[in-house]
Amino acid sequence: MHTVLRSSTREVTIGHDQPFCIIGERINPTGRKAFAAQLREGDLSQVVADVEAQVAAGAHMLDVNAGIPLVDEAELLAQMIRLVQEHTDLPICIDSSVVEALDAGLSAYEGKALVNSVTGEDDRLAEILPIVARHGAAVIGLANDETGIPETAEERLAIARKIVRVAGEHGIPPEDVVIDPLAMTVGADPEAVNTTLRTMLLIRDELGVNMSLGGSNISFGLPHRAALNAAFIAIASAHGLTSAIMNALAPECVTAARASDLLLGRDVWGASWIATFRAAQPVA
Amino acid sequence: MHTVLRSSTREVTIGHDQPFCIIGERINPTGRKAFAAQLREGDLSQVVADVEAQVAAGAHMLDVNAGIPLVDEAELLAQMIRLVQEHTDLPICIDSSVVEALDAGLSAYEGKALVNSVTGEDDRLAEILPIVARHGAAVIGLANDETGIPETAEERLAIARKIVRVAGEHGIPPEDVVIDPLAMTVGADPEAVNTTLRTMLLIRDELGVNMSLGGSNISFGLPHRAALNAAFIAIASAHGLTSAIMNALAPECVTAARASDLLLGRDVWGASWIATFRAAQPVA
Repeated sequence: MHTVLRSSTREVTIGHDQPFCIIGERINPTGRKAFAAQLREGDLSQVVADVEAQVAAGAHMLDVNAGIPLVDEAELLAQMIRLVQEHTDLPICIDSSVVEALDAGLSAYEGKALVNSVTGEDDRLAEILPIVARHGAAVIGLANDETGIPETAEERLAIARKIVRVAGEHGIPPEDVVIDPLAMTVGADPEAVNTTLRTMLLIRDELGVNMSLGGSNISFGLPHRAALNAAFIAIASAHGLTSAIMNALAPECVTAARASDLLLGRDVWGASWIATFRAAQPVA
Repeated sequence: MHTVLRSSTREVTIGHDQPFCIIGERINPTGRKAFAAQLREGDLSQVVADVEAQVAAGAHMLDVNAGIPLVDEAELLAQMIRLVQEHTDLPICIDSSVVEALDAGLSAYEGKALVNSVTGEDDRLAEILPIVARHGAAVIGLANDETGIPETAEERLAIARKIVRVAGEHGIPPEDVVIDPLAMTVGADPEAVNTTLRTMLLIRDELGVNMSLGGSNISFGLPHRAALNAAFIAIASAHGLTSAIMNALAPECVTAARASDLLLGRDVWGASWIATFRAAQPVA
């Protein structure tokens, strides 16, 4: 199944037979005080720097989030999306929990965006899916609902199944629904990753849809996070994860995604791998 | 299932609920011209250096191989094993394709060794298993036989099943048989890793035995090998691989094994991870 995203001039395909899609997580004021303060004052220069750094690091798409308390998020997000489009042709993942902001962001976007995100909650589905459908976008569906974050893979699968079904009722085909199987912090629950991996296998086998998740959350609170995130990306890629909103500026993580592509047969004969690393390091 | 190996003073357990067992591959003259020349002249000083470097790097066991053309391999291997034991209490993996060398190595070893290796060929099983049983050792069984290296996971499983059965007839219990599902070079076959991963799942689900393999072979001929090997270790660890004969001197590979332990619930609350990396890098 192929989820095709587009900017005005470039197309990116997410799929189980495609290279792992690296969605740069950086353009997000959450946890970035200085960046949030700049945005609040109307200074968007850091956005441009973040675009350029992530493009150079190998991102395939860019997540854009404008979630700052007491700010007109719809207006800011639309501004940021217009700016990002001026500086890259990578497709954008429009990231907000505010329905009006998603709508404004989609209106400002030229192409087919990925909307981040909707949950399995009835009211969220009813609010967000019509907007996604109207703009011809794709959407990330989180495998949680009114009851919270399910502890078992089977319950997460059931929510994923529901999201795909309801999306279909709104005219959004399964290939435009990307399920987030939820990756919680392993430092808070030793079984967190195992549950996420089991969820991925169930979703891959039953629904066959693409999957994405926040690739940095699992290592929260632990030292040497990039190494944990890198191993997680590799393992998850082999369990059906086809993209992640992740730290494209951590070379370990980007390299792990590319290594997984080669190992799992999605970079046949290592053409991309060799092109990337031939110059960097001699054959050992 | 637990495979317990011992030196005279230390015990190492390989198991699906245990930390991934890193078997240092370095003490092997294959592909090391200078080392081979030294060994041929009776200079074993590099062996001591290799022991110390691998112990410092975090190896749990050490592979010892004395395979040099036109040398009395049995005598040299016994010498090397005596020397290694003087410099570390890590258990040893005795590595030879020569039956007499395995016997001599086992005679020189104080503890319970891992023998590397036997294949599924009838004559090899008949020659090697009695020696393994007599010394009370454990053995690595390669999933290939008279017909060569099977292309499919199902054929490899069949050979693994046979090795476990014949080992039992020689009094070697399943927990002392560690199956090598065979990792071929992905640069020569884009499906090589996928076949190995499928083999692991079948062996884990049907036989439940421990598994090990050469963790460096998959990247042969490709640039930036350590990064490929590291991603492979992480992915394989999540598919039932419980140890590997690998490059313990590549920090990427050791870190990937440790990260997998934490992610997969074998380093609960990250106690080992935090002890290793807390000092090295602040929480990001």
